[in-house]
Amino acid sequence: MPSTSDRPREACGIFGIYGNPEAVRMTYFGLYALQHRGQESAGIAVVAEKGIRVHKGMGLVSEAFTHHNLNDLKGNMAVGHVRYSTTGDSNLTNAQPFVINHRGRSYAVAHNGNLVNAYELRSDLEKKGAIFQSTMDSEILLHLLVRNLKNGIEEGIQKSVAKLKGAFSMILLTEDSIIGIKDPNGFRPLCIGKLDGHYVLASESCALDLVEASYVRAVDPGEIVIINEKGLKSITGPDMPRTSLCIFEFIYFARPDSNIHGLNVYQMRKAHGKCLAEESAVEADLVMPFPDSGNYSAIGFAEASGIPLEMGMIRNHYVGRTFIQPTQTMREFGVRVKLNPVRSLLKDKRIIIVEDSIIRGTTVKTRVRALRELGIKEVHMRVSCPPHRFPCHYGIDFSLKGELIAASKSVEEIRTFLGLDTLHYLSLEGLLRGTQIKNPQDHFCKACFDGKYPVSFDENVCKKECFERS
Amino acid sequence: MPSTSDRPREACGIFGIYGNPEAVRMTYFGLYALQHRGQESAGIAVVAEKGIRVHKGMGLVSEAFTHHNLNDLKGNMAVGHVRYSTTGDSNLTNAQPFVINHRGRSYAVAHNGNLVNAYELRSDLEKKGAIFQSTMDSEILLHLLVRNLKNGIEEGIQKSVAKLKGAFSMILLTEDSIIGIKDPNGFRPLCIGKLDGHYVLASESCALDLVEASYVRAVDPGEIVIINEKGLKSITGPDMPRTSLCIFEFIYFARPDSNIHGLNVYQMRKAHGKCLAEESAVEADLVMPFPDSGNYSAIGFAEASGIPLEMGMIRNHYVGRTFIQPTQTMREFGVRVKLNPVRSLLKDKRIIIVEDSIIRGTTVKTRVRALRELGIKEVHMRVSCPPHRFPCHYGIDFSLKGELIAASKSVEEIRTFLGLDTLHYLSLEGLLRGTQIKNPQDHFCKACFDGKYPVSFDENVCKKECFERS
Amino acid sequence: MPSTSDRPREACGIFGIYGNPEAVRMTYFGLYALQHRGQESAGIAVVAEKGIRVHKGMGLVSEAFTHHNLNDLKGNMAVGHVRYSTTGDSNLTNAQPFVINHRGRSYAVAHNGNLVNAYELRSDLEKKGAIFQSTMDSEILLHLLVRNLKNGIEEGIQKSVAKLKGAFSMILLTEDSIIGIKDPNGFRPLCIGKLDGHYVLASESCALDLVEASYVRAVDPGEIVIINEKGLKSITGPDMPRTSLCIFEFIYFARPDSNIHGLNVYQMRKAHGKCLAEESAVEADLVMPFPDSGNYSAIGFAEASGIPLEMGMIRNHYVGRTFIQPTQTMREFGVRVKLNPVRSLLKDKRIIIVEDSIIRGTTVKTRVRALRELGIKEVHMRVSCPPHRFPCHYGIDFSLKGELIAASKSVEEIRTFLGLDTLHYLSLEGLLRGTQIKNPQDHFCKACFDGKYPVSFDENVCKKECFERS
Amino acid sequence: MPSTSDRPREACGIFGIYGNPEAVRMTYFGLYALQHRGQESAGIAVVAEKGIRVHKGMGLVSEAFTHHNLNDLKGNMAVGHVRYSTTGDSNLTNAQPFVINHRGRSYAVAHNGNLVNAYELRSDLEKKGAIFQSTMDSEILLHLLVRNLKNGIEEGIQKSVAKLKGAFSMILLTEDSIIGIKDPNGFRPLCIGKLDGHYVLASESCALDLVEASYVRAVDPGEIVIINEKGLKSITGPDMPRTSLCIFEFIYFARPDSNIHGLNVYQMRKAHGKCLAEESAVEADLVMPFPDSGNYSAIGFAEASGIPLEMGMIRNHYVGRTFIQPTQTMREFGVRVKLNPVRSLLKDKRIIIVEDSIIRGTTVKTRVRALRELGIKEVHMRVSCPPHRFPCHYGIDFSLKGELIAASKSVEEIRTFLGLDTLHYLSLEGLLRGTQIKNPQDHFCKACFDGKYPVSFDENVCKKECFERS
Repeated sequence: MPSTSDRPREACGIFGIYGNPEAVRMTYFGLYALQHRGQESAGIAVVAEKGIRVHKGMGLVSEAFTHHNLNDLKGNMAVGHVRYSTTGDSNLTNAQPFVINHRGRSYAVAHNGNLVNAYELRSDLEKKGAIFQSTMDSEILLHLLVRNLKNGIEEGIQKSVAKLKGAFSMILLTEDSIIGIKDPNGFRPLCIGKLDGHYVLASESCALDLVEASYVRAVDPGEIVIINEKGLKSITGPDMPRTSLCIFEFIYFARPDSNIHGLNVYQMRKAHGKCLAEESAVEADLVMPFPDSGNYSAIGFAEASGIPLEMGMIRNHYVGRTFIQPTQTMREFGVRVKLNPVRSLLKDKRIIIVEDSIIRGTTVKTRVRALRELGIKEVHMRVSCPPHRFPCHYGIDFSLKGELIAASKSVEEIRTFLGLDTLHYLSLEGLLRGTQIKNPQDHFCKACFDGKYPVSFDENVCKKECFERS
Repeated sequence: MPSTSDRPREACGIFGIYGNPEAVRMTYFGLYALQHRGQESAGIAVVAEKGIRVHKGMGLVSEAFTHHNLNDLKGNMAVGHVRYSTTGDSNLTNAQPFVINHRGRSYAVAHNGNLVNAYELRSDLEKKGAIFQSTMDSEILLHLLVRNLKNGIEEGIQKSVAKLKGAFSMILLTEDSIIGIKDPNGFRPLCIGKLDGHYVLASESCALDLVEASYVRAVDPGEIVIINEKGLKSITGPDMPRTSLCIFEFIYFARPDSNIHGLNVYQMRKAHGKCLAEESAVEADLVMPFPDSGNYSAIGFAEASGIPLEMGMIRNHYVGRTFIQPTQTMREFGVRVKLNPVRSLLKDKRIIIVEDSIIRGTTVKTRVRALRELGIKEVHMRVSCPPHRFPCHYGIDFSLKGELIAASKSVEEIRTFLGLDTLHYLSLEGLLRGTQIKNPQDHFCKACFDGKYPVSFDENVCKKECFERS
Repeated sequence: MPSTSDRPREACGIFGIYGNPEAVRMTYFGLYALQHRGQESAGIAVVAEKGIRVHKGMGLVSEAFTHHNLNDLKGNMAVGHVRYSTTGDSNLTNAQPFVINHRGRSYAVAHNGNLVNAYELRSDLEKKGAIFQSTMDSEILLHLLVRNLKNGIEEGIQKSVAKLKGAFSMILLTEDSIIGIKDPNGFRPLCIGKLDGHYVLASESCALDLVEASYVRAVDPGEIVIINEKGLKSITGPDMPRTSLCIFEFIYFARPDSNIHGLNVYQMRKAHGKCLAEESAVEADLVMPFPDSGNYSAIGFAEASGIPLEMGMIRNHYVGRTFIQPTQTMREFGVRVKLNPVRSLLKDKRIIIVEDSIIRGTTVKTRVRALRELGIKEVHMRVSCPPHRFPCHYGIDFSLKGELIAASKSVEEIRTFLGLDTLHYLSLEGLLRGTQIKNPQDHFCKACFDGKYPVSFDENVCKKECFERS
Repeated sequence: MPSTSDRPREACGIFGIYGNPEAVRMTYFGLYALQHRGQESAGIAVVAEKGIRVHKGMGLVSEAFTHHNLNDLKGNMAVGHVRYSTTGDSNLTNAQPFVINHRGRSYAVAHNGNLVNAYELRSDLEKKGAIFQSTMDSEILLHLLVRNLKNGIEEGIQKSVAKLKGAFSMILLTEDSIIGIKDPNGFRPLCIGKLDGHYVLASESCALDLVEASYVRAVDPGEIVIINEKGLKSITGPDMPRTSLCIFEFIYFARPDSNIHGLNVYQMRKAHGKCLAEESAVEADLVMPFPDSGNYSAIGFAEASGIPLEMGMIRNHYVGRTFIQPTQTMREFGVRVKLNPVRSLLKDKRIIIVEDSIIRGTTVKTRVRALRELGIKEVHMRVSCPPHRFPCHYGIDFSLKGELIAASKSVEEIRTFLGLDTLHYLSLEGLLRGTQIKNPQDHFCKACFDGKYPVSFDENVCKKECFERS
């Protein structure tokens, strides 16, 4: 399982399907394909005979659901969710989809993203008598929704969504419809597919591929799509001069076989590798990624630079999430148990490592040190994005603990810290150029690199702290 | 495990402890002792550093909690809950304690009993914008509570409780207090104990025994006891001419080693056995219970009648809740695997079986038939309570499926159905006399026998149906 | 689960069935009924299409076998085994049935008892090149068997069995027969039943009851019964003037609903209670057993003495084998969690406790102390067998660790140690008289009481030590 | 987990360590690194205070061992084993290490390889009275060993090993030594490392890397190395003109970061890719492997041909061994759930797939078909070894069920079956040339390609059939 505590974490993946007799099973597979977006809990809600029923469980989709669980959930409309705990709290309270009952009707919501005005909204609701069981933004939406249902669900959603600020791609399940919602900036991905004449919603297109749905299009920023027996109805949002699709989805999060908003992730990573080679060539014997970090940028870098590509470190395919640790100190055991260098390949060589990102730098540091001990002549590193200097407020946790190394250190200081011969990051220009679209500066959020946050927020309200306390 | 689907089910057992450094572990043991009151889920909430934290799990206490779970919950005030699912829905949504956050404070509640005005209260709250996640009465209390906190928790509780109708023994946990609440009729047990100078609350005194707390007294009907750093403060409720302690707790539910409202369960059962012998003697060779059904009444019956007591059926101590069933039809396998008659003891004998209650009668029927096949001469049955003719609306499910046999059949018809030579039930007078207190008719709810419900309710509002639907 | 480390342990229970299309499932149920004879591992061997196949697992029968395991074993001849580990080694190496292959044929054996010449036999075999994988006596039998097969299985068994000394009731499974073997002294029980025209073998008759087989008769001491398509063939053993059925099976081990060699266990226990009352009456207010220790003797004692029977301590039915222990010292927690006294029943009373046996006395001591603290006036104990002064070499472990208290202490010293007002053991004469058969001294092994071992052994060869070492 | 039922299976990986206070834990990690050699069971034997103790479990190393299991095994000499079941029988009987007791001493053995005279040896032993509990070759060695111990262990091993014919790399554990044994042809790998001054043995050098042992050398064909307190003693075997190291270890089995007999696996695979490009160039837009099949050969092929390398199919990192299957037929779901093509990358392209081997061809066929559906222009396949035409008798199961496709089909027929535009296999000459050593034909077994078996065997004795029967 390719996870290190020293890697960024996405909050969630979501999936919804309408009018399919195997809706629950399809959602299970959809979540399977989106597992990389969240591995701590999984849940599926379905419209059953007597309202919405839900099952949630801890761990991977394959752990959270048994045959029995799936068979218990019967219906042809379902929504599913996988998530990371961003709070470190390993219980089910915060697992999604979040389901409520109100006046004889049930509602479920699955959410990807982060509201920046959650604290204000919640305080206001509490003053009106609302009680909260979780720290999830989704719960806020449902409170707003039931207070705006007077003129029907459509108006209810529009009025409620209008109050939300921040990043939200969500799927709402009512007893007769599935509703996809994307914030006006369009931070997080959400796309529409079609299977056997009915609509499907998913965070990434790879989930459509697995259930054999065809790709229709992305949900637009600010759009609300209501899917029910009448088909798909689109309510467009405010006209935005600029949108803010998270560029880090392409660099790191999304699966390379996914298309996001029409752009293929694999090819963009490779393009970034090429840009990187053009910006910062160096003489070397081979180019290599750390497995599953910079694979595709490394291919692009090698192709552009003409330096041979090698897979110089081998991953142990059988490292699960749990294994017994050494009792005595074994140097960098956690690193070595996952990756072992091909010693005879690397010895006495000058190597370039292409990385996708450096967050805290601790894992990279130990990996570089392990390589140095083999007698490698030169170790150069090229990173396929600019330095991460600013936290994300729209749904990504760059680091559970500790700091972004680039927030306090210069590139030269980082190079020294990591023990490298040379270190270069892709420039912001290179990053945008690599997207290969027109006016890329108008279409992406790159706040983690330049600190320009597309949706403003009150810095004094440290949302998470407040909620975790309460 | 002594459970058959054909036996009555109590909704819950509750436990709370204040000011104990091992509060969570003590609650774990308290629930252990109360396990007979609910076996489908268990939960413990504790006041931790940053507000109330909770862990809930399915199954027995020993299954729902690992070492890790217990160690995760740190604090010196805790409340716990064990429950049956009365809805047949085996997920965690309805497990308790129920925890919420409101304006930066957290609250938890554990509830035993059943409100008869839940539907009205809930509808009213929903009209005001409240959303519900469960079908639990506890959630209603918390909604009421946060709307009445203006002048502090004490007034808040009193105002909220005043709106509730029905049976409720509950423990509320705030961030600084543990509050015991009993409805004015006092349907369900709740008692106060003391351990190391601090107070403990528990459904039955057997839980106090296990944690080595001394018994102080029962919570009075209508009383609210607030336990915090100032000690215990009692707020007495309305003065009631009659109270309604559930007499079936003594007949069936409570552990024989418990005292409830000062009355010992074991001795009351034995007294009922004696009354039964006085009312309906018959010549026979031996008296026996079905193991763990009528043990103590049988002892009383044998003593009063002078007929020898035997344990004519032997329980397999190793029958767990799961074992593999026969593929082909084996006659009454489910009965035989649990209980095997001592053939040479029973053959050619006239036997009296003392039972604690007959609900649907199906299990009794198969057990009697199994005995008949051994060549027993006469089988008489004596039941240590009157026939169950009316459903309980205050927290007991007599039967998950199907009817109370006595609701539609006369005693003679039941005798024929069960294949008995004679059948006698204890009279209502005998039942009350067996309690050995003055004016027993003023102190017990016996609605399941005589249909006189101490707290009225709207028959048209079939509460459970509504909630399960929504 | 009624097990304390301070209780005697039987080695095994065995079951075999011939010619039944559900042979494996029947064996599963047979072991279920024999679970009290061994709870550490369980195994079933079946004659499958390509020879004997086996599944063994740790723990109770219900834990050791899944549906899948049972369905994997297909055939209509099977033998099963439950066992305690007498070595404390919790792995599967010593689980039974023990299966081998030899010259294209497979054999399985399930064994109850203990050989006293195992060391000599094994050493001799090792000198001839045999290798051993376990410390089981069963492995020795199989080594002997394959060396004696020249003239067929029948002669092979007779020649092999002739070399064994000690206690052995065993079932051998070949590819076409099931063979029951009992040692000439007949220490351990083994009986024959019949189901649908085919034969069944079982340690106790309660296993026949569960699978609905009728009881035919006990296997005689020294008898070999060969069951195959020709029916049942009996080969009688040497004519023994005296046999040695283990009397402790009746006192303690066997299920009360079993008949052993034609004698009912329940009724013998009750008879022992009566003899005990006759030998050692005392004035008291009530007679009680510790639950599941002296239940049936207590009934007999109460009946003979006229003193009322009570169940003064209540067992928690939900105490499983695993639960989380208190962190801080809670006095006698292990005792209290299982049994809680009915305080109001016992306070200020003079009580007689009827026990089935006292081995080390530690549990009894803590239980008595717990009673004393409740304010009981007098505590008398009556034990339904004589003091255990000698170890068993024929298949019972009286104590995993430490000594038999009666080996080094007088009755008066034991009384003081246990904190009792009076203590009486049943006399050896009373024990024999209670069996209600003629010349009982010629039919039972009572070596643990009088040290007269019916089969001699070399004291210097401490068999278990040797094997465990090697 | 990269396993398909349609892939070859190695029998085993072995590891042994002497004189290390953490011997058991080091063995656990050694097996972790060797997990690719066997995933069905794992075991570790250790010399404990009272002889050799062992724990074995089903599944991966991380599943077979708990903390508790490891802590239970105490000692500083250990041997471990991971294996595939080659019989399809999923129980522990055949798990290794195999441990026996003989005349007060214990022995354990872990074995990789396959004897071709097992049937003869076993029959002969059985005639002499030996009984067998497993179908393992290891059991045969131990029977031979105890019959040859008269003049000590060294002579015993030499005499026993002299009788074995076939492939065997094994580690024998006695109470004072660890002994590495390799057959005279040297089929299976086994190497010597050193850690803290003491010796280690392992199937592959990657296991040495993980425990931080330095690589010393390979065990030579026919060599016996005895490691004990005197250090390492080597007994050389017969002088062989030719040896027979399994070339398929390099092509497929061994980890690329391992060196085997001084040759690096990664570099040999890359060299084979280059030879393949030289032998069978074709014009195309890109070269790609199926992930984890032909990765390193594809790199070599791309480098030699100048055609760009791409990773055109993306592996779902979270596919575990168990997940719930679709109920209705979803086309090639099993393939798609593991690998998803990058559609926009491959559409309209001419692609070359480099594969490491084709056994039955069924998985390749479905993968090619899935690619064809995306609109790929041309699909060419290049295989980095010659066609597999002959079964292996020395320890590899090419296919659990069914036939080697190349045994009955010509290359052209295979091409048609797989739906390819062109198909080329590496020639035997290319294969040998790619090893980059002198006279490669004298050093490798390549019987699966050319049918020239270095150690002869009696075709009529279908060993496995016989043993599985018995």
